[in-house]
Amino acid sequence: MDMLVDWPLERLRDYLPDRDEPADFDEFWADTVQQAREVGTPALFEPYDARLSTMEVYDVTFSGFAGQPVRGWFLIPAHLDGRLPCVVTYIGYGGGRGLPHEWLTWGAAGYAHLVMDTRGQGSNGYFVGDTPDPDPVGLPHTPGFMTRGLTDPQSYYYRRVFTDAVRAVDAAREHPRVDPDRVVVTGASQGGGITLAVAGLVDGLAAVLPDVPFLCHYRRATEITDAMPYQELVTYLKTHRGDVDAAFRTLGYFDGVNFATRATAPTLFSVALMDAVCPPSTVFAAYNHYAATDKDITVWPYNGHEGGAGWQFPRQVELLRRVLG
Amino acid sequence: MDMLVDWPLERLRDYLPDRDEPADFDEFWADTVQQAREVGTPALFEPYDARLSTMEVYDVTFSGFAGQPVRGWFLIPAHLDGRLPCVVTYIGYGGGRGLPHEWLTWGAAGYAHLVMDTRGQGSNGYFVGDTPDPDPVGLPHTPGFMTRGLTDPQSYYYRRVFTDAVRAVDAAREHPRVDPDRVVVTGASQGGGITLAVAGLVDGLAAVLPDVPFLCHYRRATEITDAMPYQELVTYLKTHRGDVDAAFRTLGYFDGVNFATRATAPTLFSVALMDAVCPPSTVFAAYNHYAATDKDITVWPYNGHEGGAGWQFPRQVELLRRVLG
Amino acid sequence: MDMLVDWPLERLRDYLPDRDEPADFDEFWADTVQQAREVGTPALFEPYDARLSTMEVYDVTFSGFAGQPVRGWFLIPAHLDGRLPCVVTYIGYGGGRGLPHEWLTWGAAGYAHLVMDTRGQGSNGYFVGDTPDPDPVGLPHTPGFMTRGLTDPQSYYYRRVFTDAVRAVDAAREHPRVDPDRVVVTGASQGGGITLAVAGLVDGLAAVLPDVPFLCHYRRATEITDAMPYQELVTYLKTHRGDVDAAFRTLGYFDGVNFATRATAPTLFSVALMDAVCPPSTVFAAYNHYAATDKDITVWPYNGHEGGAGWQFPRQVELLRRVLG
Amino acid sequence: MDMLVDWPLERLRDYLPDRDEPADFDEFWADTVQQAREVGTPALFEPYDARLSTMEVYDVTFSGFAGQPVRGWFLIPAHLDGRLPCVVTYIGYGGGRGLPHEWLTWGAAGYAHLVMDTRGQGSNGYFVGDTPDPDPVGLPHTPGFMTRGLTDPQSYYYRRVFTDAVRAVDAAREHPRVDPDRVVVTGASQGGGITLAVAGLVDGLAAVLPDVPFLCHYRRATEITDAMPYQELVTYLKTHRGDVDAAFRTLGYFDGVNFATRATAPTLFSVALMDAVCPPSTVFAAYNHYAATDKDITVWPYNGHEGGAGWQFPRQVELLRRVLG
Amino acid sequence: MDMLVDWPLERLRDYLPDRDEPADFDEFWADTVQQAREVGTPALFEPYDARLSTMEVYDVTFSGFAGQPVRGWFLIPAHLDGRLPCVVTYIGYGGGRGLPHEWLTWGAAGYAHLVMDTRGQGSNGYFVGDTPDPDPVGLPHTPGFMTRGLTDPQSYYYRRVFTDAVRAVDAAREHPRVDPDRVVVTGASQGGGITLAVAGLVDGLAAVLPDVPFLCHYRRATEITDAMPYQELVTYLKTHRGDVDAAFRTLGYFDGVNFATRATAPTLFSVALMDAVCPPSTVFAAYNHYAATDKDITVWPYNGHEGGAGWQFPRQVELLRRVLG
Amino acid sequence: MDMLVDWPLERLRDYLPDRDEPADFDEFWADTVQQAREVGTPALFEPYDARLSTMEVYDVTFSGFAGQPVRGWFLIPAHLDGRLPCVVTYIGYGGGRGLPHEWLTWGAAGYAHLVMDTRGQGSNGYFVGDTPDPDPVGLPHTPGFMTRGLTDPQSYYYRRVFTDAVRAVDAAREHPRVDPDRVVVTGASQGGGITLAVAGLVDGLAAVLPDVPFLCHYRRATEITDAMPYQELVTYLKTHRGDVDAAFRTLGYFDGVNFATRATAPTLFSVALMDAVCPPSTVFAAYNHYAATDKDITVWPYNGHEGGAGWQFPRQVELLRRVLG
Repeated sequence: MDMLVDWPLERLRDYLPDRDEPADFDEFWADTVQQAREVGTPALFEPYDARLSTMEVYDVTFSGFAGQPVRGWFLIPAHLDGRLPCVVTYIGYGGGRGLPHEWLTWGAAGYAHLVMDTRGQGSNGYFVGDTPDPDPVGLPHTPGFMTRGLTDPQSYYYRRVFTDAVRAVDAAREHPRVDPDRVVVTGASQGGGITLAVAGLVDGLAAVLPDVPFLCHYRRATEITDAMPYQELVTYLKTHRGDVDAAFRTLGYFDGVNFATRATAPTLFSVALMDAVCPPSTVFAAYNHYAATDKDITVWPYNGHEGGAGWQFPRQVELLRRVLG
Repeated sequence: MDMLVDWPLERLRDYLPDRDEPADFDEFWADTVQQAREVGTPALFEPYDARLSTMEVYDVTFSGFAGQPVRGWFLIPAHLDGRLPCVVTYIGYGGGRGLPHEWLTWGAAGYAHLVMDTRGQGSNGYFVGDTPDPDPVGLPHTPGFMTRGLTDPQSYYYRRVFTDAVRAVDAAREHPRVDPDRVVVTGASQGGGITLAVAGLVDGLAAVLPDVPFLCHYRRATEITDAMPYQELVTYLKTHRGDVDAAFRTLGYFDGVNFATRATAPTLFSVALMDAVCPPSTVFAAYNHYAATDKDITVWPYNGHEGGAGWQFPRQVELLRRVLG
Repeated sequence: MDMLVDWPLERLRDYLPDRDEPADFDEFWADTVQQAREVGTPALFEPYDARLSTMEVYDVTFSGFAGQPVRGWFLIPAHLDGRLPCVVTYIGYGGGRGLPHEWLTWGAAGYAHLVMDTRGQGSNGYFVGDTPDPDPVGLPHTPGFMTRGLTDPQSYYYRRVFTDAVRAVDAAREHPRVDPDRVVVTGASQGGGITLAVAGLVDGLAAVLPDVPFLCHYRRATEITDAMPYQELVTYLKTHRGDVDAAFRTLGYFDGVNFATRATAPTLFSVALMDAVCPPSTVFAAYNHYAATDKDITVWPYNGHEGGAGWQFPRQVELLRRVLG
Repeated sequence: MDMLVDWPLERLRDYLPDRDEPADFDEFWADTVQQAREVGTPALFEPYDARLSTMEVYDVTFSGFAGQPVRGWFLIPAHLDGRLPCVVTYIGYGGGRGLPHEWLTWGAAGYAHLVMDTRGQGSNGYFVGDTPDPDPVGLPHTPGFMTRGLTDPQSYYYRRVFTDAVRAVDAAREHPRVDPDRVVVTGASQGGGITLAVAGLVDGLAAVLPDVPFLCHYRRATEITDAMPYQELVTYLKTHRGDVDAAFRTLGYFDGVNFATRATAPTLFSVALMDAVCPPSTVFAAYNHYAATDKDITVWPYNGHEGGAGWQFPRQVELLRRVLG
Repeated sequence: MDMLVDWPLERLRDYLPDRDEPADFDEFWADTVQQAREVGTPALFEPYDARLSTMEVYDVTFSGFAGQPVRGWFLIPAHLDGRLPCVVTYIGYGGGRGLPHEWLTWGAAGYAHLVMDTRGQGSNGYFVGDTPDPDPVGLPHTPGFMTRGLTDPQSYYYRRVFTDAVRAVDAAREHPRVDPDRVVVTGASQGGGITLAVAGLVDGLAAVLPDVPFLCHYRRATEITDAMPYQELVTYLKTHRGDVDAAFRTLGYFDGVNFATRATAPTLFSVALMDAVCPPSTVFAAYNHYAATDKDITVWPYNGHEGGAGWQFPRQVELLRRVLG
Repeated sequence: MDMLVDWPLERLRDYLPDRDEPADFDEFWADTVQQAREVGTPALFEPYDARLSTMEVYDVTFSGFAGQPVRGWFLIPAHLDGRLPCVVTYIGYGGGRGLPHEWLTWGAAGYAHLVMDTRGQGSNGYFVGDTPDPDPVGLPHTPGFMTRGLTDPQSYYYRRVFTDAVRAVDAAREHPRVDPDRVVVTGASQGGGITLAVAGLVDGLAAVLPDVPFLCHYRRATEITDAMPYQELVTYLKTHRGDVDAAFRTLGYFDGVNFATRATAPTLFSVALMDAVCPPSTVFAAYNHYAATDKDITVWPYNGHEGGAGWQFPRQVELLRRVLG
């Protein structure tokens, strides 16, 4: 059941909130990414029999955060030659990389496609995951992933995930069939939040396509929605009453709003006005701060967190056709 | 939240209930199908720009029940030649044909693929539908489709749908790129129920792949589950207290259990033991009555109505590779 | 569980929103009603043994939209003579005409009473319905009645219902025991919405009594409530993303706010401040636009969609006693 | 959402459980009723302007338990003369006597009709109540009425209610327009449970019409349903862990099963197989023990606690026409 | 699931609503308390074997409203001598005094501790209650305690409870081991509301510690929350449509906001910004009107009705150490 | 809302299911515990100011699994001397050690009391936790703790927890104020499951008090309840369809039924017949296999997972008084 969950569209379009950004934001991320690259090894692409005949499928293992192995799928149209533009997809909260035949769209559109598994996730009843998330610190946290290591940016879960995501782009760019100058990042919900992080951390992306992104403008999100997964933050802070400041300090390093100010690639966002999971003001906060001039946002007035669903894809292809030449 | 919803597996495997079949079952269906074929016109396959490059996509309009236009998608791998085996897919309850890029699996596996829209459906918030369901009788019914025209087999909704489904196979077989001897029918839930109907009404199918089929063994279904959509029957009978006998008399013409006894093509069913939507005893009732010797059923012990989801596909391809040569 | 669901009462009392009315609104309705009258045949009133002794009961069939048969009940006190004032009742969403002894109030108060069945409805578990709703177009729609034929005013479901409702007044007026100058229309929820339509389409009504009316001020309704049945509109638009403009264009012909501006009979509305089904601002939008000067609205501050329930009846009788002489 | 909630019908028809009846059951009730009669004063029937013209309406106050004033409505067809048979109605749990025009059916069928308010009840959001329930003991209890004074038969709430109900029959019989030999008792749910109590305590009733009766076979009820209001017992016993024996000892004096064995008037029960509120085995336990030979039970196979709703009425009238001559 | 349920904190801090106070408020309470004291008898403290060795436990019975017996527990550290400061605790809605070992905190902190049972309550599935609530008037009311006798301040339930609460302080002060000048009152939710009433009615309290208090600023509460138990008021008024004015007139005698203006003891409140049961504006209304200058309020930003839970206790001890010397 | 959720009590009393125990069960646990002891360091007991005066409180850190630090509270009555018997408490699922004043019961009864924090848990909105759970493997798992490392007994979460629990007894026994021959283990739900594990792994316990224990008879639990937390297993297996055998193989090392056969200390269990979280047949499976002759089980017929709540404590003290001398 859906209804408007946030401000009217006119107010959303103008919403440009103050940001809360740690002074060492760039240094924190530069160090983190550099460390991961230093210990990284070349990505493995093992052929996988997905019972498909028009798509070559590879089971990918690449070096993510701290060089840890991260799984993924790599799909490439069987009948095309040469270097292709490549779409890198990040997955929504709770899901894993699933099975290769669940990811055929971008390949069918003629792109190479790398799908990154999200570490630790993928046991929620739908898309299965295969990537461990070693956590040698193991701070107490609310069930789920959003509050793991919350009180310390070094140990926060999304430090590992965002680093994996940057390294997924590295892995794609290193593949001989991928044109490294034409890499696109995309994802919905958590995948959209990861997309924004990568957009702020990686240079030279051809396009950035975040759909109904999660992981933006955390404090407002915790105040205006009681839906999962932002609710995990609320539950954590409800229990650990003394950790409010530390938690939001950490989240400053992981806020899509802060990554957006560093992102310059052409972009097409999407947002849904009846989305209680990722309320529209949190999405517009990131969109309005996004640093590119070639930017647009599709507004779905009668949708919830499904946003544009399959209807967003043609719009995204239009953008890619324009920017990829 | 899931738990066992029916008998233990051992009892299910042996469950072969008595059937309640109208004496003129075969005549009813022969007449219905013949009438549809008599007024039918050739199917239209109009090229559609789905922004895909490895798949040719056609927007299909074929003559269904009473010659009425029924929509669908036809997808065929762009780089293959000659006649291909063809999979015909029927859709789950509430959904419509959606968008072409939502149906890429069978094409990617090298098959031609016809997806039949379900008349009237496709406005439930996810897969959109485009096929009208003219209903010049318009008997009062419970919201949804399951009780439309329930008290008269002539006006019952699924008479129209099952006829459309038979005609979808006709349309596929008439396509110059399809090998008419290698047509496979499949679908999940309502799609599985339609699959069973087609399996009982159409000769020469290469294989029949019903997943967690709906529309089987109605009376027991109404007694052991309070989940939608069987609940629509309960709600109807709760209101129209005098229509119980007429309703079940009608349903005798539309019961997957009765179609199964007429089905001889090789088959692979699936069933889930925690499926409250299509309880396993209703599925086993059809499977155990299925008339082929080349038959098997995948049992998913810890799944609900999602059944095998993407995990069923590789098993289905194995069967097709075996029976299609 | 109830709480305030809309603006405070002071703001509601002054709420006079702009209206969105098609230019050919009057022509559309004049044509529609005229066509129905042209093909109409005299109403049938068949005596019905309802096991009652103080009330004469008739099973009514009258010519509604396109001359189609519409059912109803006609009750008249057994011990009164001559022409009586007549109340015509329209029914709430989902219900049908039920059984005659469920409609005894107005007869007991000394009025003739015609209860109109709502076509297609009456299978939701309570009041049973007996009137078909032939729909030879049969556009895809969300389960329920509210989005049937939504994208075209000609095929929209309520075109048929509102026409039936006008014709119900015709049927009442033609009955030899009814005083045609003393016909009153009433109904709650959907019945209230139909009441408003009739108030705008029929001349010479003695009084108009809409309770917590539905079918008013659609766009705001879809934005501020997630309750059924307005939610059917949201679900439709969530699926058919391209139909937003066409849908609201259609609804302009069916908005109680537009009918209200054409209504001049004395009226008593009711509204409930905790009514999430028909939020009070949508009711006040119609009330404040209602064109009569002899108008009043009962405000129930602590009620939900039940509104005044049985407590509204004495107030209504007071009005009728005054205006009917 | 409904499904079978108890045994299959065949087993229910034969279910004749052992009864748990206190040795002084008859004495307890004889004393209680006698005391009430001793302090009773004649019932008051005050004319009430219900805005009706075909029904005379009286606001009744009669002496109930301990002579306390109990309210009710008395309705009698305005155009009939002489002594009439009288139906006494008891109300479902939570509701009060409401407004007179909500009780027109029996009057319209030609009977005098006394509706007894249920003491203390009638503030649950629908039918309003007007009768206090003085409780000078006031033992702690679960919200609601079912556990008031539960540990002592003398102070148990239904001792007061059942006595009121017996006295309501007295009040009806004393009215000059009522034929005291043709008094019928009826009610649904709690009203059906009260009906059974009166059937066991009052001689010479013309008929007994309990619909989906509550207050029967308590222990099984607490074990097989988690629905209100039997759940109040569970909640009480869950809190007062030491009171289980005392509670069931008390309930032995108030069990419809025990009253049924003393009831000899012709009866028509109703029961619904999907009724989780008053599960069918608890109803059949009373029906199968009912001591008359002129007895029948209407079984509604696809209904929940609404049972036959308005459809039961014609069946009841048939019985009354037969037994009342 | 929690989110902000009321105004932002800045607005709450300044919220000082107009009060609606009956002219004879003080007289009403002076009379009520005086009458209770006149008929009171000395409290009984009977030793109770709670299987504890470091705490002396007494089963208390003292004279409450109208001299009626009210139960409680009295706990005192086994190894301390002389007169101790005493904390008097009132209990949250629905709960009773439970078992002594469920109330060990204040005793372990070195205080004498009197826990007052709440009359009639304590059968809701958790803390058991043992105190009857004789109600010789017994007006109809919504299940629960909040609307008992609502239309008359003399018969309103909380008149009895608040009087019991004043008399509990009397009982504590009369105990030879308690220092009557160092009595503290506390409680959460309903216990906090009772605490405020006692704070306004009893002189010379050492401290007042209301946590997330209920029973404050009733009209706003009924408008902004649909949570229990304020919802009982809504349900009552929804049924008894004519009682709105009488109800709020009564509640004027029982509003924590009015008691707060008479309270002068040092106080520490607590409030939670995500508390839908006792919305923060209703708590701040009382706090901002509280008449002492030595006052503070702990704000829990990410908590619901649990408020500070165990984290409030150390803050309360800090206050007591300061004010008790 | 509660009702019977499993077999009748008579059947439960006789239920002695076959067990599924790995051949190297004892070796697995002997190795695991030995490794932990080898790397362990002496427990730290740091005085903690809990604002209490009759109880000495210590913040405990002891060496658990792999020598990792585990937190706890140690409380000892301030006015007793010498070595005391000690109760070791394990906590229910989701909760952490909370605050010391939330654990006063056993101390007030005269026992030393060690409360063990559960690693990783304690962020669910109530009892806060302070112990990390380093997980250097980090297999994908369903949110929560129950499926962490599920497919390998070496990495399964409860291997770490049960080892911590054994080491907690070691820590208690090493404390100079504890009599090592009089150590008792207890806990409810997950705490009860841990209690059973310790009962099977540690010699010389004085008594074992598991309340409504979790972590028993897993396969049946997954089939008969859809309640959390057993549902985490179902969700995992629903996603990881191929892991069913590996999962149950792992769980064989962690099943309370298997530990029970090795437990010889006197015991008092509790079980609730309406407990859907830990269904009674899973509890009786463990109880009936429990190897001691001095054993008893308290059956709560009308309770859910709260079981006996505070009412179990006096029964437990009775046992302790008997066995501790």
